[in-house]
Amino acid sequence: MRAEEALRKIAEERPLVHHLTNYVTVNLVANTTLLTGALPVMAHAHEEVEEMVGLASALVVNIGTLDPYFIEAGLLAGKRANERGIPVVLDPVGAGATSFRTTTAERLLSQLRIAAVCGNAGEIATLAGLAAEVRGVESLAGDPREAATKAAVTLGIPVAATGETDYVSNGKRTLAVSNGHPLMSSVVGSGCASTAVLGCFAAVGKAETETVAHALAYFGRAGEVAAEGVEEGGTFEPRFLDALAELARDSSGLDDTLQVKDVTG
Amino acid sequence: MRAEEALRKIAEERPLVHHLTNYVTVNLVANTTLLTGALPVMAHAHEEVEEMVGLASALVVNIGTLDPYFIEAGLLAGKRANERGIPVVLDPVGAGATSFRTTTAERLLSQLRIAAVCGNAGEIATLAGLAAEVRGVESLAGDPREAATKAAVTLGIPVAATGETDYVSNGKRTLAVSNGHPLMSSVVGSGCASTAVLGCFAAVGKAETETVAHALAYFGRAGEVAAEGVEEGGTFEPRFLDALAELARDSSGLDDTLQVKDVTG
Amino acid sequence: MRAEEALRKIAEERPLVHHLTNYVTVNLVANTTLLTGALPVMAHAHEEVEEMVGLASALVVNIGTLDPYFIEAGLLAGKRANERGIPVVLDPVGAGATSFRTTTAERLLSQLRIAAVCGNAGEIATLAGLAAEVRGVESLAGDPREAATKAAVTLGIPVAATGETDYVSNGKRTLAVSNGHPLMSSVVGSGCASTAVLGCFAAVGKAETETVAHALAYFGRAGEVAAEGVEEGGTFEPRFLDALAELARDSSGLDDTLQVKDVTG
Repeated sequence: MRAEEALRKIAEERPLVHHLTNYVTVNLVANTTLLTGALPVMAHAHEEVEEMVGLASALVVNIGTLDPYFIEAGLLAGKRANERGIPVVLDPVGAGATSFRTTTAERLLSQLRIAAVCGNAGEIATLAGLAAEVRGVESLAGDPREAATKAAVTLGIPVAATGETDYVSNGKRTLAVSNGHPLMSSVVGSGCASTAVLGCFAAVGKAETETVAHALAYFGRAGEVAAEGVEEGGTFEPRFLDALAELARDSSGLDDTLQVKDVTG
Repeated sequence: MRAEEALRKIAEERPLVHHLTNYVTVNLVANTTLLTGALPVMAHAHEEVEEMVGLASALVVNIGTLDPYFIEAGLLAGKRANERGIPVVLDPVGAGATSFRTTTAERLLSQLRIAAVCGNAGEIATLAGLAAEVRGVESLAGDPREAATKAAVTLGIPVAATGETDYVSNGKRTLAVSNGHPLMSSVVGSGCASTAVLGCFAAVGKAETETVAHALAYFGRAGEVAAEGVEEGGTFEPRFLDALAELARDSSGLDDTLQVKDVTG
Repeated sequence: MRAEEALRKIAEERPLVHHLTNYVTVNLVANTTLLTGALPVMAHAHEEVEEMVGLASALVVNIGTLDPYFIEAGLLAGKRANERGIPVVLDPVGAGATSFRTTTAERLLSQLRIAAVCGNAGEIATLAGLAAEVRGVESLAGDPREAATKAAVTLGIPVAATGETDYVSNGKRTLAVSNGHPLMSSVVGSGCASTAVLGCFAAVGKAETETVAHALAYFGRAGEVAAEGVEEGGTFEPRFLDALAELARDSSGLDDTLQVKDVTG
């Protein structure tokens, strides 16, 4: 599914996207979800997490500030999402930085049926068993294309590795997404927010390779629009949310501005 | 108490408003409290929650990301607030979406003496025993006027149900508040922030029907001021905080711009 | 170390600064760290906190929303940081408001080797055993100069007490920092963010008195730059982040704008 179609469906259906996410970027994630046209909800209590998933059209699990209670919530929510057949999207924040993050990402991938994974090059390289350097939650080295392709083969699902160019692969087909702007890396949580958009797109379709790529392309395009006349990350962030909202509301013609290229093989 | 008087008192007394709130919108809630002129504090540890309430002039309990530890903190803090005679304001975020949220709101209402409740139409309808559709934390259907009136009769306290027009009722008298702007619904947490303002107003007076209505009217008026020349929610949010601060600092004449109407009967 | 040198080193080394911090201002703290040029990470799980410290160049412990799990995480992380010889910076948010906060700050100071402390006048006065009034997390009275000097003598480390003028003392030498702008007190978390900057500076040097003062002076200077043409705290906050980024990226000449004065004796 391409971006225009996804955004139209999101506007029509107003799907609930349930986020189990970190407390650092949660507000940006919620606003990104809302301005993309969906309804965000955050709920982590074991007493309600399954019932809340019952209302949702997609579940996003982001392990940015994980702890044992959070992981258990992710497993409970994920199993219920799997039973209901709604997509579960994983952002393995910091995989490769600590073994707790790496093994948690692996555990979620093995115990749940994950629809798609989205992370930076180092995190995805880690999941692919490649060498990687992840300093905290930042990728310092790693080839996003190789990471996405290898991880997709290993995991058998669409995987996105973000970077200057983003790569999305299902192991057979690989797409490159060139939309974006350097200022996006001056905002804490832009990675989390891109996975949130992927959650919105998945909520109205399937998290197929093209859909994942178009979610990232729409996100990157918003960055390009927002960057006009802005110099730094502080004032860029509210404009970025504006751009997401503008493009979501008036999406006609958007697909033509998206730079998604098949680079398979 | 009307808005001008409340804001003047807040500026003079700088009351501490203790928030037990969710981690999604907590920063907006804190900044809203500060720019309205009060001092926000967030403290949830069972070891200190009662002592912190001892310094506060109002307690706001917002169940947006509740869990058992949070609920216990709310009960401890609320009981201490009741002992001290300071107002406790409840925002039943997501009541109607999961039974955990609904029963928690009911439990807080039965075990504490709540001064006022503020929520969206669906949440308030749920507390009134009316049919409602709450998708996550968003109200999709429900008549705010009927919800506020019925819930006020059931609970015996002032209840506000927010919507395009907000309604505040104590069961006998019902006020309609027409200030506001559609962009406010493009900011995650505007509902939480409006309850925070109510907490500030309650901190310097009583959470009576008129006071509740004037808190919401001031909040809505700030939305109107902030919306001038702004198109989307991202850049609207910082301007909205500016508008709260401007109106709070220079509140003379504010009451004349507030659209609060008695619609009893 | 002066600000220009510190910022140049931060840009070169991109040190990881590990924050154990509160959920109210965590996003501002993270963005402040990133735009100062360092890499922020937040991790609190006992399972990973020591491993994450193993990657970090500084640890910042901010007790703004402390609870027993958090304190234990702070002790685990702090001990590992001490073993590794990386600086631990403490922000004793709300010390003096509740005994839980006061005793926790004292416990961290006694069980860990803290490199520097940074708080408002009331918090620092509390640690110095002086009379203080802390309403929630706000200092209502207290002389920052006396507080910093006395606390430094008591604790034997550099201590910063912030206020209209900030004072930094190691007990022998006292520096006054006059950079800053009143709008900074209209942003929830500006104190937390200043301690975050101190963490960045400490990550590339030692948390000596001059370094602490220069961190606060750079922070205050950013406030001055950001305030031009801005009236209120809402729109000030994103511009303040912009100013931090601008000054960090192009720091040449910055030292000449910093008002750091030796006021010893």
